[in-house]
Amino acid sequence: MLVDDNFYMSLAISEAWKYQLLTYPNPAVGAVVLKNDELLSIQAHKCAGEAHAEVLALKEAYLKKYPNDLLSKIVDVFEIHNYLVSNTKGFFEDCTIYVSLEPCSHLGKTPSCAKLLESLKIKKLIISCKDDSKKASGGAEILQNKGIEVKYSCMQKEGYELLYPFLQWSKKSFVFFKMAQTLNGTINGGKISKKQTLKYVHSLRSKIDLLCIGGNTVRQDKPILDTRYVQNGINPDILIYSKQKSFDKSIALFNVLNRNVCINDNLDKLNNSNFVMIEGGYKLLEILKNKIDYVILLITPEMKFGLNYISKMNLNFKIIHEHYIVDDKIVFLKFIQ
Amino acid sequence: MLVDDNFYMSLAISEAWKYQLLTYPNPAVGAVVLKNDELLSIQAHKCAGEAHAEVLALKEAYLKKYPNDLLSKIVDVFEIHNYLVSNTKGFFEDCTIYVSLEPCSHLGKTPSCAKLLESLKIKKLIISCKDDSKKASGGAEILQNKGIEVKYSCMQKEGYELLYPFLQWSKKSFVFFKMAQTLNGTINGGKISKKQTLKYVHSLRSKIDLLCIGGNTVRQDKPILDTRYVQNGINPDILIYSKQKSFDKSIALFNVLNRNVCINDNLDKLNNSNFVMIEGGYKLLEILKNKIDYVILLITPEMKFGLNYISKMNLNFKIIHEHYIVDDKIVFLKFIQ
Repeated sequence: MLVDDNFYMSLAISEAWKYQLLTYPNPAVGAVVLKNDELLSIQAHKCAGEAHAEVLALKEAYLKKYPNDLLSKIVDVFEIHNYLVSNTKGFFEDCTIYVSLEPCSHLGKTPSCAKLLESLKIKKLIISCKDDSKKASGGAEILQNKGIEVKYSCMQKEGYELLYPFLQWSKKSFVFFKMAQTLNGTINGGKISKKQTLKYVHSLRSKIDLLCIGGNTVRQDKPILDTRYVQNGINPDILIYSKQKSFDKSIALFNVLNRNVCINDNLDKLNNSNFVMIEGGYKLLEILKNKIDYVILLITPEMKFGLNYISKMNLNFKIIHEHYIVDDKIVFLKFIQ
Repeated sequence: MLVDDNFYMSLAISEAWKYQLLTYPNPAVGAVVLKNDELLSIQAHKCAGEAHAEVLALKEAYLKKYPNDLLSKIVDVFEIHNYLVSNTKGFFEDCTIYVSLEPCSHLGKTPSCAKLLESLKIKKLIISCKDDSKKASGGAEILQNKGIEVKYSCMQKEGYELLYPFLQWSKKSFVFFKMAQTLNGTINGGKISKKQTLKYVHSLRSKIDLLCIGGNTVRQDKPILDTRYVQNGINPDILIYSKQKSFDKSIALFNVLNRNVCINDNLDKLNNSNFVMIEGGYKLLEILKNKIDYVILLITPEMKFGLNYISKMNLNFKIIHEHYIVDDKIVFLKFIQ
């Protein structure tokens, strides 16, 4: 395998995928720092409001060389920025930074990453995707104007796939369909996913603006659809997709604090929310397939007899990414028409 | 993500998995070269009789720094060894080599890797698994006796999983079950896998000592089970697992040159061959599950109605590894009892 710019960018992109969707409303971004030719750090943005990928990668890179430095104790993003600018004396001047997305030019919840990289006088910036958003674009130009070399479009296709959910929810809405299954596609028969995977689902629920679920599932399974497996989880509002409007209101999901539940068979509401998760089975997947950006399969490595796909129509996908949640798999899919 | 010895060893191990089983009767092995702290190469052993992982990694490392060196033209393993020893003047003396398996101590089809590393006076050797085979063990000791630092057991669990097929076929036999399916576990309905995946299956068929298939599949599908998609492929001998011994001998698989076909319902023959592939569906998988080391699923990203698993007994697996063959997936599974 060739050890080149593509290789290092792919490390940044892979790292970022671990936090895909969880960074909402921010994009998932990964960064890598090379000092001369030594790989020092691989980092990713983890949560909106927290440090950007570049900042975490710079911090880790410096600590790799000076593990006992005061910097290890600093958590606040503004303080990390200031510390890096004031206390790293030329350390980054022979560094190349790989970032999957052009560093932000603006002061938002965190200071501008482009200005930080400019202050540190890094040797070279390599980016996968340009940031075309109104408020954050122009970061690479700031560096170029200071004579810092910038290389664009490294692993651009892969960088775009990583950025895709962000592009969708920034424009209008990003809708994904989550389904838990066995290796052979069975979707019924009690809890399929393992604890760690359920935790991940609850993290997603805590980020989304709206959770959509089919009326039959509500009637049969009586799910609570809350976020009890994560700390300080926010319980999402619910859209029950159902023609028939009468439900037993004692079902748990109707009795969660600070939650709106709406029952409707008009799906326009999906596009009124920026970040929507649909939980369901094959039937709902087939009905809603034209409204879905991603299908996320949580696969437990088991073969089991049970409910499976029975429509005559084949559904074709492209695997966008996948990784493990302990022993389960998470697979990100896009429909191919 | 921490950039440490485990990180570099995992690069070596991942690279080796791309050639898992295809190196038979050799083990799948990966190697990485770091010069001071600069990552120079990631390589793997690809085919028995060709260069070992260490040799390929050393060659690529040197060429990374001297891309126009004569070495780039040398392919013969003995010549690469000689060239590295005679023409790289101290280049590797500040290099750390990561290898998933202890370098071989003996002269076999290729020269001893341990002696090569000793001649090059590398700084440090890091290995995942010791080589306990009679003929190749003792490589690390050769280096230690020359004062070269050796670190053992780096990512040992992952290194062991990579080595597992080799350990099995060296001891008695390694038997794997190959099945092609859709994302939802459907296994019928014409060709499931894409061209590239079929090519991979034919490469496997060309390596194995015996191919086992169920009698009903032979009767219904009339497969030829040859290796026409690979160059110079060797058509494997066949064991048809069937109680009923009469078959229409005009079926293509009976008419392949230099092939033995045996019809039997006694499966002892599986353990008389070192490297066995079983091709079949869920029924055969369930019947033979106690005789299988690996299940290899080739998954095409499609959902489709069709034949699926219908037994009442759940089958539980651990995912050992997986990667892509273009757009299809290959998943290596072990049964969990």
